[in-house]
Amino acid sequence: MNDQQFMKLALQIASATNGRTWPNPMVGAVVVNNGQIVGMGAHLKAGEPHAEVHALNMAGDKALGATIYVTLEPCSHYGRTPPCADRVIQSGVSRVVIAMLDPNPLVAGQGAERIRQAGIEVVTGVLESEARRMNEVWLTAITKRRPFVWMKAAMTLDGKIAARTGDSKWITSESARQEVHRYRDQADAILVGIGTVLADDPQLTTRLPEGGRSPVRVILDTHLRIPESARVLGPEAPTILVCGPNADPAKIRSLQSQTVDVLQVGLDNGKVNLHQLLDQLYRRQITLLLVEGGAEVHGSFLDAELIDKVTMFVAPKLIGGTGPSPLAGNGFSRMSDAVQLQNISVEMFDNDLAVTGYPDRQFRNMELQDERR
Amino acid sequence: MNDQQFMKLALQIASATNGRTWPNPMVGAVVVNNGQIVGMGAHLKAGEPHAEVHALNMAGDKALGATIYVTLEPCSHYGRTPPCADRVIQSGVSRVVIAMLDPNPLVAGQGAERIRQAGIEVVTGVLESEARRMNEVWLTAITKRRPFVWMKAAMTLDGKIAARTGDSKWITSESARQEVHRYRDQADAILVGIGTVLADDPQLTTRLPEGGRSPVRVILDTHLRIPESARVLGPEAPTILVCGPNADPAKIRSLQSQTVDVLQVGLDNGKVNLHQLLDQLYRRQITLLLVEGGAEVHGSFLDAELIDKVTMFVAPKLIGGTGPSPLAGNGFSRMSDAVQLQNISVEMFDNDLAVTGYPDRQFRNMELQDERR
Repeated sequence: MNDQQFMKLALQIASATNGRTWPNPMVGAVVVNNGQIVGMGAHLKAGEPHAEVHALNMAGDKALGATIYVTLEPCSHYGRTPPCADRVIQSGVSRVVIAMLDPNPLVAGQGAERIRQAGIEVVTGVLESEARRMNEVWLTAITKRRPFVWMKAAMTLDGKIAARTGDSKWITSESARQEVHRYRDQADAILVGIGTVLADDPQLTTRLPEGGRSPVRVILDTHLRIPESARVLGPEAPTILVCGPNADPAKIRSLQSQTVDVLQVGLDNGKVNLHQLLDQLYRRQITLLLVEGGAEVHGSFLDAELIDKVTMFVAPKLIGGTGPSPLAGNGFSRMSDAVQLQNISVEMFDNDLAVTGYPDRQFRNMELQDERR
Repeated sequence: MNDQQFMKLALQIASATNGRTWPNPMVGAVVVNNGQIVGMGAHLKAGEPHAEVHALNMAGDKALGATIYVTLEPCSHYGRTPPCADRVIQSGVSRVVIAMLDPNPLVAGQGAERIRQAGIEVVTGVLESEARRMNEVWLTAITKRRPFVWMKAAMTLDGKIAARTGDSKWITSESARQEVHRYRDQADAILVGIGTVLADDPQLTTRLPEGGRSPVRVILDTHLRIPESARVLGPEAPTILVCGPNADPAKIRSLQSQTVDVLQVGLDNGKVNLHQLLDQLYRRQITLLLVEGGAEVHGSFLDAELIDKVTMFVAPKLIGGTGPSPLAGNGFSRMSDAVQLQNISVEMFDNDLAVTGYPDRQFRNMELQDERR
C-alpha cells in the first residue's frame, strides 16, 4: 500500500462520523510502521480526543519511526483539547502525511510548520480534493457562516417535474426515492415551499428500512397559508415555519407548539430573504440544508446564488406536454450566463440517473480559500 | 477466444458497413479453424456477395471442419445472389454459430434448418441482443415499413432548451455538438420544424473534421412559412419541405429547385400527419430519420408514438426561469402513463451527458417480433 491508499483508509474512517462532529470537521488518522497499520482513529464528537490522539494511543511504542496519515492538518492551538501537533511530535513518528491544511485561521499551516520544525518530514496535499469534498459541509459552514445548501430535484428525461395536470407520482423508482431518504438522514434540515405542502401534504421525514434520523423541517410560507392539519406539523420531527413580517400574529400563536417554531424574516422582492433565513438556521446549528423544492423555491436559491451542490434525479421517461421544469425563479437571460456545474458524478438507481455537481461560482470561492493558504 | 468473442468480432466487422447496405442489413462473418481465424467478411452493398461468401472464400480449404460465426441467419432463398445456406453446407464447416435469425419471412429460421438437416451443428442466439441493436434501423424499417425515428435533443440539468429570452447558444459543449454531427453522418435524413428554421436559420449539414455525409433535410412547414433565403434551402444537401394541402401553390412552385422538393401531406389536428410523412420518406429510401426538434415537433412524434430511440444531451448547468423544455405536444396527463425508456446507456462528452434509451412501447413490438419466430 502507498500513501494514497493509506490516506484513503483514513478518509473512510473519518467518513463514518458523518453528521456527528459539528462544530468540528470529520477527521481520520492511520499510523503505519514498516508497511503495517499499527494505529487508527477518528474524531467522534466535539470535546472528545482528536483522530491523531486515538490513532497514536492505539499505536503506542509502535509509533516510533512510523508514518501518520491524517486527513486534516493537526491543530496547533489549545482548544477544548491540547494541540495535536505537539502530541504528534512527542509520539516519535518520523513522517506525517496530511490531506489538507486546516482553513481555521487559528491553525492554517501552523500545525504542519510546528511539526516540520521538530525535524519531522511533512507531506501535504495527498488526496486533498477528496478530503475537501468529504468535509464540504463543514468547510462551507465555517467559511461562509451559513448552512451548506444541497438542492435535490427529480425530473423526466424531457425536463418535467409533473404532467400537465400536475400529477407527479412517481417520477423516479423506489430505489431512487430511498436514496433521497438517505440524503435526509444526513441532513440537519430539509426545506420546501408552501406550494409543495399544499399540493402533496408530505411528511418530510426520513423513512429507511433501518430507521434513520429525520431532519428539522423548514417550510417557506411567506403569508403563513399552511393548514393546521398539514402532516408536516406532526410531532415526528421539529418544524420551522418561515414567514414574512406581515404574517397574521394570531395564526403564528396558534401554530406554535413544542415541535413547531415560527420564524419571521424580512422580505426580498416579496419573498422570504434567504440570506437572513440561512443566517437564522446557522445559529440553530443547521449546517447541511437539503432543499427539496418546488421549482419556485429552487429558483429563489439559484437567483440568490445560494446553491452549493445539486443532485438531479433524471428518470428515463417522456411525459410531453407543458408540465413545469424543476427550477423557475428569474433565471438567466442568456445561456452563456447559466451556472455551470463542476465535478460531475453520475449514479444509477435502477434506470434512474442521479447527476450531482457543484456550481462553479461556489466552487471558485472554495478554490480561493485554497490559494489563500 | 470463445463463441462470444468471435461473434463480437463478426459484429464489429459488420458495423463497419453502417448506413451502406440498405435494403439489406449489416452482416459480418468469421471462420475459425482450431482456434485460428481463417476467414472474415462483411456484406458491403446490396447486390454484392453476402458476408458468409466473402469469409468462406477467404478461408478456402481451411473451412473444412471449421466453425463459422455469422451475425444473421444465412439466407435460404434465391435473391440477387444464391442461398448462403447452401454455400455454408458446401464449404465443409462442421459448426455454424448465428447471432439472430432473419425476420424476413422468406428466411425466418429456414436457413438454419436447412443447415441443420445437412448434419451440421447450428447454435443460435449468441450475442443476439447486440446483433438486433446493430441492425435496429433495418429491423424497424423492414418490419414497420417506415424510417427508424431517432429523436435527439439537448437541455440543461434543469430541463430547459433555452433561457426565458429564447437564447439557446450553446447548451452543450463543442464535443457534444460534434457527436451530433456524427449522428447526422449516419442518418439518411434530418427533420426539424419551421420554428427551428425561423429561430436559428440552421444549415442542418454534417460538419465533421473528416467531412461526413449530409443527410436529406426535412422541414415540417404546414403553412409554408419558410423564407426563400433560409440557409436550409442551400445546395449543400437535398431538402424536402413538408406542407399541408392548403399551402400556397405559387410559393410551392417558386421554392422547388434541383435540390428542394415540396411534399404535400394530409393534416391531423391541424398538423402534418406524421404517419403519411414517414410513409413518403420510406418510399424515398430513408430508413434512419434523425429528429432534431424543436419541442413541438418532438411532442408530435411522442403523441403519435413514432419515436424508436431517444438521445437526450444533458448539460450540467442551471439556467432557471421559464424557458421551454425539450418535448411539448399533448403529452400524457398522468406520470404513470409516461413513456418509459429501456436499455439506457449514458455517455459523457466533456461534462455533458448523452442519455440514450428506447421507448418500451416500440421495444415491446420488437420483442413480439422475436417471439413470432
